[in-house]
Amino acid sequence: MFDPLSAVQSFIRHPSVSADSTYAEGMKGARDFIAGLFRNLDCSVSVIDTPKHPIILAQRTGDPSWPHVVIYGHYDVQPPDPLDLWTTPPFKPEVRNGRLYGRGAADNKGPLMVHIAAVARLLEQRPDLPLRITFIIEGEEEIGSPSFRPFLQEYCERIRGDFVLLSDTGSPNPEQIVITTGLRGLIGCEVELTGPCTDLHSGVHGGPVLNPIRALCSLCATLHTPDGKVAVPGFYDDVQPVQDWERQELSRLPQRLEDYKAFLGVDAFAATYGQSPFEAVRFGPTLEYNGITGGYQGEGSKTIIPSKASVKVTCRLVPDQDPKRIQQQLIATLHERCPKGVAIKCTPGHGGFPYSVVPPGRTNTPPNQPPRLAAAFREAEAAVTKVFGSKPLFLREGGSVPVIADIKKITGMDSLMIGLFTPEDNLHAPDESFHLGILQRGIDVSARILARIAEGG
Amino acid sequence: MFDPLSAVQSFIRHPSVSADSTYAEGMKGARDFIAGLFRNLDCSVSVIDTPKHPIILAQRTGDPSWPHVVIYGHYDVQPPDPLDLWTTPPFKPEVRNGRLYGRGAADNKGPLMVHIAAVARLLEQRPDLPLRITFIIEGEEEIGSPSFRPFLQEYCERIRGDFVLLSDTGSPNPEQIVITTGLRGLIGCEVELTGPCTDLHSGVHGGPVLNPIRALCSLCATLHTPDGKVAVPGFYDDVQPVQDWERQELSRLPQRLEDYKAFLGVDAFAATYGQSPFEAVRFGPTLEYNGITGGYQGEGSKTIIPSKASVKVTCRLVPDQDPKRIQQQLIATLHERCPKGVAIKCTPGHGGFPYSVVPPGRTNTPPNQPPRLAAAFREAEAAVTKVFGSKPLFLREGGSVPVIADIKKITGMDSLMIGLFTPEDNLHAPDESFHLGILQRGIDVSARILARIAEGG
Repeated sequence: MFDPLSAVQSFIRHPSVSADSTYAEGMKGARDFIAGLFRNLDCSVSVIDTPKHPIILAQRTGDPSWPHVVIYGHYDVQPPDPLDLWTTPPFKPEVRNGRLYGRGAADNKGPLMVHIAAVARLLEQRPDLPLRITFIIEGEEEIGSPSFRPFLQEYCERIRGDFVLLSDTGSPNPEQIVITTGLRGLIGCEVELTGPCTDLHSGVHGGPVLNPIRALCSLCATLHTPDGKVAVPGFYDDVQPVQDWERQELSRLPQRLEDYKAFLGVDAFAATYGQSPFEAVRFGPTLEYNGITGGYQGEGSKTIIPSKASVKVTCRLVPDQDPKRIQQQLIATLHERCPKGVAIKCTPGHGGFPYSVVPPGRTNTPPNQPPRLAAAFREAEAAVTKVFGSKPLFLREGGSVPVIADIKKITGMDSLMIGLFTPEDNLHAPDESFHLGILQRGIDVSARILARIAEGG
Repeated sequence: MFDPLSAVQSFIRHPSVSADSTYAEGMKGARDFIAGLFRNLDCSVSVIDTPKHPIILAQRTGDPSWPHVVIYGHYDVQPPDPLDLWTTPPFKPEVRNGRLYGRGAADNKGPLMVHIAAVARLLEQRPDLPLRITFIIEGEEEIGSPSFRPFLQEYCERIRGDFVLLSDTGSPNPEQIVITTGLRGLIGCEVELTGPCTDLHSGVHGGPVLNPIRALCSLCATLHTPDGKVAVPGFYDDVQPVQDWERQELSRLPQRLEDYKAFLGVDAFAATYGQSPFEAVRFGPTLEYNGITGGYQGEGSKTIIPSKASVKVTCRLVPDQDPKRIQQQLIATLHERCPKGVAIKCTPGHGGFPYSVVPPGRTNTPPNQPPRLAAAFREAEAAVTKVFGSKPLFLREGGSVPVIADIKKITGMDSLMIGLFTPEDNLHAPDESFHLGILQRGIDVSARILARIAEGG
């Protein structure tokens, strides 16, 4: 019998850090381990080479009339640094207080194992289950999934099912599950301003030389309006209005503004042009600075006018903003507003489309959805309500999982995203953990959905 | 006979880096070397302990009616990094193309040796020279002279002479000497903004959280007007108008704007509210950013909202701006303008007063100057004209030597500053050098001035 907890623990013991080539062995170990699980489920397993980390494609085929569910997950994890902030070593999983600690416990090894365990349990009970299942488990999610689009294009026909099932999004707490109906897209750009050809003595030359840090600050200061809008022309042109049902769902979110403020450790929220803070995260696009640098970085002072200053910018996008268009507009705006006396260089980063899906029964004019997708949403709602004791919330999330929009664009499949990690799980941080109650209940939910879909919804 | 070139070379061989305690032996070596020179000149020498690096006080006493010249210099140098950019090792002096290369060659070992050599030559020729001479050679100039004010206060009576003679300022080229009539003051402040208590995922929390980098940029963007003025209330209140004679001197500066632009490597100068670029450097106060940092500093992207962002600010001040008042105003303004949602912390740095002196004959209402100071300026003008073949320019300089204002405030003495380094000397940079023609002619100039002062001007 499949023991999900022990399986996640074994999975975590493989240090599968995709960003760092010194973890190549851990990546291979995690891959072999997962491929082994799929072979035990009698799936046909392909390990598909990519320029970086292979994708595991495992399939349980069957009669073409059977429903076909695609389960997505990733076997790679974030780097474990800073190591000294972990209570126990990141790759030695340990259970404490009803949680499993370890790098990847919540992102994505635990939640991925939920669905593998559900399939294992179902097939144990009903080896003849009339359900085709395709697992796509990639190894580059934490580094931006560079190989995933080419994979989708090449394997489009072979992997196309009725919908995608995955758990790589969050819920507010272990009692209130969110079914994620949207993800923000992403674009990025590194902006470097160069003033004088070398660092200058700020006494000997200070006055007539435009300081690149000053230029960068004044340039960045033009990118938001006082009420918090992104001040890039056309930025909001394609933003779809928030639907009434979305606001209703959000109003049920069991989270108070004061608690959120305390969690963040701030005394006030930013201006969000009429949105509530929770609306701003889930429904609004953003422009954020992820890092800024220039001039003297050491202790004390060094009286220079630096030659260069630079800033890393990313925007989170919402439907139907187009990443390419927004990136072009941003870069054009930066060039246009860059003051004379400094030269600007913008290096675009990789981007991703925003994504959204409308659960059935929410709009007066229902979207044209395949019946099995609509059924999956209904079964998920029923299963979560039954197993967790309260109805799920159908909410967009602020984060980005760009592969979801790519899957939609390339294969046409929508995704049913069941949020299984919570804010306490410390994703991408030390002492990452996964709630064991969610692990067990998640398996129940996933198994119920898959069983019902197999039965014809 | 005193050989000035060989003396500077010996001086450079002692790596007297005041900022780095691993150079303690080099500091001691430089000190002992200089003290030895003064003992050879029959001066009484005191090596005065300070919390960091001792000050050398050497005196040639005499009849109280004799003129008394105070010669200032410093035996410490900047760190030699980056070492790999030096053509020859920084502490192995080498002569190439009429220049002496080595750390400290121009700042300040060469120029200081000019005056020591002049005294040595004079005393060799006239052992009975009716001139009292006090040498004050400090070892902390490159780290902000923290011990110099207490020294001045304690030794005020003993060291007070008719004026101070020094060479720690610049001239445009080896043919055109500048006699420096003013120095800018300095204040500094490190500004740190803290938003959320930890770095946040920019997807999960982006929107309602004020990004500290955004807050810092918008805060900094308020500190200059579009025409380039410093936008801190009261900043210009005490700025003394530039005198007509100063503009006349500046107009004789053999430097073209196009050449300056090419030297800096910029395509345009900053707006300087009606001043010319050269006026802005020598006559205007500034606010500069010396370094900025916040968030992710590595390659590529990391989609965080950082917890903190900070910037190092310094202002160059002109007469009669008060450093303390300007620093308070700056910090108060920063606090006042800091947006809600981030906390601000300003850490003031050390500061220094601006300084200026009016050479005789320049104004209709002559300043109330001691006759020997006025004589020294006249003799300097005559000596430079004679030795270098063209009249010196009397100009303020953009840099800061805060001890000069302190000497004035505490002892009442003004300073005669003969600029002996040039832009080609690479001060504070690799391949620092000193022009040997200036070394020799500087000695002639100094000896002429001292001889004439001894004779009664």
